[in-house]
Amino acid sequence: MARRTHEDTTLRVALLGCGNVGLALYELLAEPKNRAALRDRTGLTFDVVGIAVKSTKKKRSSAPWFDASLLTTDAKALALRTDVDVVVELMGGVDGTLDILQAALRSGASVVSGNKALLAIHGRSLARVAFDHGADLRYEAAVAGAIPILRVLRDALSGEQVHRVMGIVNGTTNYILSTMAHDGRPYEDVLAEAQSLGLAESDPTADVEGFDAASKAAILASLAFDCKVSTADVHREGITNVTSDDVAFAKQLGFVVKLLAVCELLDGGQLSVRVHPTMVPVDHPLASVDGSFNAVFVEGAACGELMLYGRGAGGKPTASAVLGDLVEVARSMRRGGAPDVPLAPRVVARRPMAEIESAFYLTLDVADQPGVLAAVTQVFGRNGVSIRSMEQVGLGLEARLVFVTHVALEGSMAKTMRELRKLKVVDRVGTLLRVIDDERSS
Amino acid sequence: MARRTHEDTTLRVALLGCGNVGLALYELLAEPKNRAALRDRTGLTFDVVGIAVKSTKKKRSSAPWFDASLLTTDAKALALRTDVDVVVELMGGVDGTLDILQAALRSGASVVSGNKALLAIHGRSLARVAFDHGADLRYEAAVAGAIPILRVLRDALSGEQVHRVMGIVNGTTNYILSTMAHDGRPYEDVLAEAQSLGLAESDPTADVEGFDAASKAAILASLAFDCKVSTADVHREGITNVTSDDVAFAKQLGFVVKLLAVCELLDGGQLSVRVHPTMVPVDHPLASVDGSFNAVFVEGAACGELMLYGRGAGGKPTASAVLGDLVEVARSMRRGGAPDVPLAPRVVARRPMAEIESAFYLTLDVADQPGVLAAVTQVFGRNGVSIRSMEQVGLGLEARLVFVTHVALEGSMAKTMRELRKLKVVDRVGTLLRVIDDERSS
Repeated sequence: MARRTHEDTTLRVALLGCGNVGLALYELLAEPKNRAALRDRTGLTFDVVGIAVKSTKKKRSSAPWFDASLLTTDAKALALRTDVDVVVELMGGVDGTLDILQAALRSGASVVSGNKALLAIHGRSLARVAFDHGADLRYEAAVAGAIPILRVLRDALSGEQVHRVMGIVNGTTNYILSTMAHDGRPYEDVLAEAQSLGLAESDPTADVEGFDAASKAAILASLAFDCKVSTADVHREGITNVTSDDVAFAKQLGFVVKLLAVCELLDGGQLSVRVHPTMVPVDHPLASVDGSFNAVFVEGAACGELMLYGRGAGGKPTASAVLGDLVEVARSMRRGGAPDVPLAPRVVARRPMAEIESAFYLTLDVADQPGVLAAVTQVFGRNGVSIRSMEQVGLGLEARLVFVTHVALEGSMAKTMRELRKLKVVDRVGTLLRVIDDERSS
Repeated sequence: MARRTHEDTTLRVALLGCGNVGLALYELLAEPKNRAALRDRTGLTFDVVGIAVKSTKKKRSSAPWFDASLLTTDAKALALRTDVDVVVELMGGVDGTLDILQAALRSGASVVSGNKALLAIHGRSLARVAFDHGADLRYEAAVAGAIPILRVLRDALSGEQVHRVMGIVNGTTNYILSTMAHDGRPYEDVLAEAQSLGLAESDPTADVEGFDAASKAAILASLAFDCKVSTADVHREGITNVTSDDVAFAKQLGFVVKLLAVCELLDGGQLSVRVHPTMVPVDHPLASVDGSFNAVFVEGAACGELMLYGRGAGGKPTASAVLGDLVEVARSMRRGGAPDVPLAPRVVARRPMAEIESAFYLTLDVADQPGVLAAVTQVFGRNGVSIRSMEQVGLGLEARLVFVTHVALEGSMAKTMRELRKLKVVDRVGTLLRVIDDERSS
């Protein structure tokens, strides 16, 4: 289908959702000084023609540029208005929202969304609907806030053979882990503080259990490797079992603990996408990404190592990413011409988690008696997991053993842990952390 | 003029220059495995139809994909061949090269270039020629190698009010300064080592005196602020006067010394573009950019702080940036439609260097006798330069005073230095370094 084009330089925007990000975007578009600056910089004018909200009663802003008459509770009717050029979706939700966005794209309107949960599942199929109806679909704001990583993967690196993408893509968990490392405080304590500061939700599950990062990992992998990856394809482990001892041992060993989203295209063309707490060497560029900042580290055959760093959340930074998408949509409507032909996504086999290789960190609480170390190391040995370093820390009548292994198979390590749990002398098997190993990195 | 369009997915490339980067690009396009991978990833095929070199006799590669029959010494004739879609210019030179690129653009061919010296002077006028003839002009490889910073400034941040861009954009000087800091060795020593490692030219002037960084600063500023900035507008200081003592004092004070390209849009809409050695706080993201890596740090009203980090030089990383541009040109030819309308560049006044504000680091070698400190600090005081910290280091019969000031005007600091040089008790005024001051950063 031919692309909808615009002779003029004004774009009419339907805004679905007016929370933190929606309001920040509305301010960037409507506040007179911002509006003038935007026109100066881009030659484009954006008119917000309606704002869909759950309740029109709620007080949102008393600023003079805030036009309460634009509010409506009927998101679908707004999205399908015939005078709308672009629908900006910042309201969240999956099934009902998908229905609205599909209908909007079918009507020929373009869509800009920041809805990672929806896009991680339906991104590819929505892109197809957009293409079939000559519309654009963009969602830079869905991953890593203001960091333009999706655009870089899709445009700048489109000719690059990317083999790995590793991201710190969840600000809440990065704040918790950074604070645990700097202050030596336990997880529960720092989580409670983050909640009181508004950096963590009252139900923190989506962040601390890695669901949010898993959605972003799926989106990153599908763009980095041109293939269909959904949230269900992502192996996911959160940070709730990371102790302040783990963080302190990591520091002693020259590492920091980060929740990483890892997307790899392995030898033989198999894919692995996973989210787990990881020990990152202190001199790795990802190690110094602190607090609520995000960063995405890309490794490619020609480009080598590349990292993008910035604000991963917050109203303004996320609205900045939405605005970048809006400008792109407006330019594309002015330009006209055929849409970019989407490549048929590659069908890529997932490598099972058990066959993934990594170095590992593991602590064991054991009885402090002769022969324990021999019994324990025998288990590692017979499963083919070679120990790189071991340290013993006294714990009264017990001892804690801190192991870092050489690179081994996940399956072998899982079997090692099962067998260790059965050993009489082992009281507790601690949290398994993956270790970025210099032996292995390119 | 209407854009040249292509029905098919093959693009014919004329390659001007076959040095380090040119050869790496040719390998990415022609080596059978790379060629297949590129076609898989982009749906596009690139045919190199000719390669302009200075001498066709020189042995360049014995690889089977290297087709020596493509070599020619007539760059202009190659660039103007009617079957050429894109001219990739990696041969350097300014005036003669400009003539060839203008002619190619006028014939309707697009141009991809990595020639920073040329683009820092003629980028805007070439962009105009390109637009007038429906052609594309792209030059991502001209700044910071594989880092897609130009694309991010032009596309992702086009709606953003960027107020500052700070870059480590010269790998040679960053290698020298990093090594001085880590090993405590003097400048001359490390420079000689860099030369023997091939990291510095036998005549290192372009790098160590900041000329290379100044070209890149001009290009960054013109894209970040949509205005005409040429190399001549850039205030430039190199690293040749930075001593190992300066680097050591910086470390003690919690800083690292970096050669920064700084582009600022100041209050009142004035512009300042400058290259100078700068003391960067150790916890600033730019501080940990070591060795030959590059990074560009952007501050914008909505996006906040954003940094891109990666390989700033080398055949493959630079060729990766050229390849990204080639894919973009090919997509744009397939798509057809009108070209993006370039905005008329803003006319922006330069703020004179004397009116720029900064914090400063300065050392003075003085006679170790009573009253010296009073005489010296009086000079700072009467010029309105307030001292933030002072440290005295014994030097036999002399003493060295190490000052860090609060934020002051460059003009006041220059006057302070002139007056200090006239003081009898002052034997030597050391290198002035600008200091990134936390009081000041947003």
